[in-house]
Amino acid sequence: AACADTDQPVAARARFVAEADRLKTVTRATTLTDGSRFENSAEHSWHLALYALTLGEHAPEGTRPSRVIRMLLLHDLVEIDAGDAPLYLQTPETQALMAEKEEAAAARLFGLLPDTEGAPHHALWQEFEAAETPDARFAKALDRFQPPMQNIASNGVSWRANNVTYEMIDTRVGRVIRRATPALWDHIAPKITTLLA
Amino acid sequence: AACADTDQPVAARARFVAEADRLKTVTRATTLTDGSRFENSAEHSWHLALYALTLGEHAPEGTRPSRVIRMLLLHDLVEIDAGDAPLYLQTPETQALMAEKEEAAAARLFGLLPDTEGAPHHALWQEFEAAETPDARFAKALDRFQPPMQNIASNGVSWRANNVTYEMIDTRVGRVIRRATPALWDHIAPKITTLLA
Ligand SMILES: [Ca+2]
Repeated sequence: AACADTDQPVAARARFVAEADRLKTVTRATTLTDGSRFENSAEHSWHLALYALTLGEHAPEGTRPSRVIRMLLLHDLVEIDAGDAPLYLQTPETQALMAEKEEAAAARLFGLLPDTEGAPHHALWQEFEAAETPDARFAKALDRFQPPMQNIASNGVSWRANNVTYEMIDTRVGRVIRRATPALWDHIAPKITTLLA
Repeated sequence: AACADTDQPVAARARFVAEADRLKTVTRATTLTDGSRFENSAEHSWHLALYALTLGEHAPEGTRPSRVIRMLLLHDLVEIDAGDAPLYLQTPETQALMAEKEEAAAARLFGLLPDTEGAPHHALWQEFEAAETPDARFAKALDRFQPPMQNIASNGVSWRANNVTYEMIDTRVGRVIRRATPALWDHIAPKITTLLA
């Protein structure tokens, strides 16, 4: 019994990381830069964490890079239960339904961990979703910045497939990026214009 | 010209993260937990960073979790040029050749960044490879711990395919895990015994 008790914290955490593996099977609307296949949400999460590590200099005042990285590592886990909702297909109705599904998913997934870790992870995910703190705004901006980068590299393959226009990108993506990190928007805006001309 | 100069730091970093996308096309010898396909090195890197975030309590004295996470986000980038070398197929000769290839890859990839970032990233990767500091030992231990976790979940599919024995796992994996974080080895050792019995 002593032995089982000692292993308890490892067992719960091992169950959590094993369950997290399923994020590798969630497919996104964006392709790899070579256009060869759609990206999954696990490799996307790695890519965003690398973006945060690389582009921290362009983060808003008061941003803590290591906290942004933790946020981005966790931000898509809810998709294991709720799936990925392609940005350009969302409406206020689908967004409200999705928010409910994602909250239930967060409760289940972070609930696999001892509460001392599960609760802070859950709170960090909620902070990301609310997009109000500097850390969350920067994390959201990177989450909006990476897909256009993939599209620019792959000659706009997933934008063309979804009939995406410059105005749609400016409203749903540009606004969020500019609010946190204008230099990144300045970098891609002319490339988007050229690509969709 | 002023405009181009201002954009310079973004452009170099954007090139680096775009190049990093290619890690999503590097296939490993380990499968997903559901056995459906082989894992790639980008999603594997995300998974390891999540392991570090989750299992930090079992890290050796003096480990800094956010530094371990940075190390793990970068640790496999060299595979973009050098490929992944399956652990159980390595010999001293292939390892020496691989170390050379990986060092050249690190110089090229981290060289895409402004030197103020590229040099510290390169040094962090070298620290990981040397596996001497507490951070690097813990990062290496997680890199050895995750594949058995995938094998245990998928009923040993990639071990069976490569005729891997308990002794091989104990030598190449167990030793590295035990040195940094014995509780993790204690958690999987009985499961490995059962699986390979
Ligand atoms: Ca590796």
